[in-house]
Amino acid sequence: MLINGVPGDQISIHDRGLQYGDGVFRTLRIHKGRALHWSRHYHKLQQDCTALKLPCPDAALLLDELQRLAARQPEATAKIIITRGQGARGYAPPEHPDPIRIVSLAPPPSYPADCYTQGVKLHVCDLRLGHQPRLAGIKHLNRLENVLATAEWNGAGAAEGVLLDVAGNVIEGTRSNLFMVREGELITPELSRCGVAGVQRERVMEWAATTGMPCRVGQFGLADLLAADEVFLVNSVIGLWPVRELHGRYWTRHPVSMQVREWLNAAD
Amino acid sequence: MLINGVPGDQISIHDRGLQYGDGVFRTLRIHKGRALHWSRHYHKLQQDCTALKLPCPDAALLLDELQRLAARQPEATAKIIITRGQGARGYAPPEHPDPIRIVSLAPPPSYPADCYTQGVKLHVCDLRLGHQPRLAGIKHLNRLENVLATAEWNGAGAAEGVLLDVAGNVIEGTRSNLFMVREGELITPELSRCGVAGVQRERVMEWAATTGMPCRVGQFGLADLLAADEVFLVNSVIGLWPVRELHGRYWTRHPVSMQVREWLNAAD
Repeated sequence: MLINGVPGDQISIHDRGLQYGDGVFRTLRIHKGRALHWSRHYHKLQQDCTALKLPCPDAALLLDELQRLAARQPEATAKIIITRGQGARGYAPPEHPDPIRIVSLAPPPSYPADCYTQGVKLHVCDLRLGHQPRLAGIKHLNRLENVLATAEWNGAGAAEGVLLDVAGNVIEGTRSNLFMVREGELITPELSRCGVAGVQRERVMEWAATTGMPCRVGQFGLADLLAADEVFLVNSVIGLWPVRELHGRYWTRHPVSMQVREWLNAAD
Repeated sequence: MLINGVPGDQISIHDRGLQYGDGVFRTLRIHKGRALHWSRHYHKLQQDCTALKLPCPDAALLLDELQRLAARQPEATAKIIITRGQGARGYAPPEHPDPIRIVSLAPPPSYPADCYTQGVKLHVCDLRLGHQPRLAGIKHLNRLENVLATAEWNGAGAAEGVLLDVAGNVIEGTRSNLFMVREGELITPELSRCGVAGVQRERVMEWAATTGMPCRVGQFGLADLLAADEVFLVNSVIGLWPVRELHGRYWTRHPVSMQVREWLNAAD
C-alpha cells in the first residue's frame, strides 16, 4: 500500500482520521489491472471531500498510485482513504489542511456462487440509522453505526443486513445500496438524511434511464420491501446480489435483477 | 506517547480506529504528576467500551502508563484512545478483538484568564446533532459532527459552540457539557439520544447533591437557555467557564457557577 505515494502501512496517531474519523473513503474493484469505474469513483470522492471541506487529491495522482499497485496485483479490491491529516489539538479543522491519502489493495472478493444465482438472505437490523443531513450520502470514516449493525447479523446465516432509519424508512444495506422492483418500476431509498450513495446505485439508475424503466427515489418501509416483486442490492465489490429471503418472505425469480446485473457487468 | 505500553507514535492503517472510528477515548488533566479524577475517567471508559462490546484494558495498566508519561511531564493534558485494533476486512467486528491502547500527553491548557473570571461567549451552531440512542453519551471516535460544528465558530470571537439536536433541544457544547441555573435549580440536558456524558457533568451533579441544590436532567430549548439566571460549561481540560454572552443575551454575575467551580477545583 501507499501513503502519500510512499510504500508503508503506518500512520501518525495524531492523524485526524484516527482521532475523529475526519476523512472519507472509497472501495472499488481492480480487474485486469484496471480500476473499474474510476471516473465515477473519483467524482464521488471529490463530492465527499467538498462536503467536508477537505482538499481532494488530484485524480491523475490517485489513479497512478492505484495502477502502480495493480501492476503487481491485477485482480484486487482497492480502498482509498483521504484524511484531513494532522492539525493542532482539538476538533477545529486546520485552516490549511495537509491531507493524507492511503491507497491499498486487498485480495478480490470470493463470495459463494449461489449469492449470485439463488440470491441472498437479508437480516433486518435492530439498529436504526440516525438523521444527519450534513453527513448523509457521504462515504466518511464515521462508521460505528455500520459496525454495530453488522455485528447483529454477521455469522447468523444472512449475507447482508437491511438498515432502517429512526423514522422506519428502509435506507440501505450495511455495505450496499438497495433497490426494489414493483409493478414494472424500480424504487430505491432517498438518502438525504442518512445512508451512503454509492457508485453502483448511480449506475443502476443509469441502466433504468437507458432501458426506459421508470426509476423512483423515495421513502418506503419494510412492508413495501416485503411486497416487492424483486429486491436486489449492489456495491462495487459485490456487484449485484438478488435477495432470496427477508423476514419470512421468499423470492425465487429475479428477472429484472439479472438484466441489471448483466448490464452492470458489461458496461464500463 | 505509548502504544500498548511501547513508546511510538504510529499505528497500522488497518486499525479499525482509523478505518471506521471504531473506538473510544478520554481526555483528562495531569496535575502535579497525577491523573485527576482517574477512577471516574476509568469508570466512563469502561462503560463506553462495554457499550461497544470492546474489551477495556485494565485500570492499573492504563494508570501505570499515564504515570510513566506524567513523571516526565507533571503538568499536561492526557488522552487515552482505545481502538478495536485490526481485524478481517469489513465492518464486522472480530470475535476476539485485540484492542490497541494509545496513551499520550500534550501541554496543559493555557486559556485566557478572563474565560474564567468574566466568562465566555458562546456561538449557536447551525449543525444539529442527529439522534442515535445506541451511541448517545459515549465518547467514541466518530466525531465528525463535532468537527463540522467547531468549524462554524472557531476564530469568530466565541470560545465554544452550543449544539442543539434535530428536535431543537439544547444538548451540549462542542467539547463540553452545559448547565443552566434557573430559580435556584440546576438543569442540564438529557443525553439519551445524542451528546457525550462527561466526567465533570457527573461531578457537578454530585456537587448539587452535596449542597442540596435541586438538579434536574431534562429537555430544554434555546429560549430556556436565554432565560436562565446563569449558564456555565464544564469539561476535564477547561474546568468550568461561566457564560458571558449568547445570542445577544449577556450575563454579568455568576454566583452559582463560581461556587461550583470552587468545589470542582477543591474536591478530588
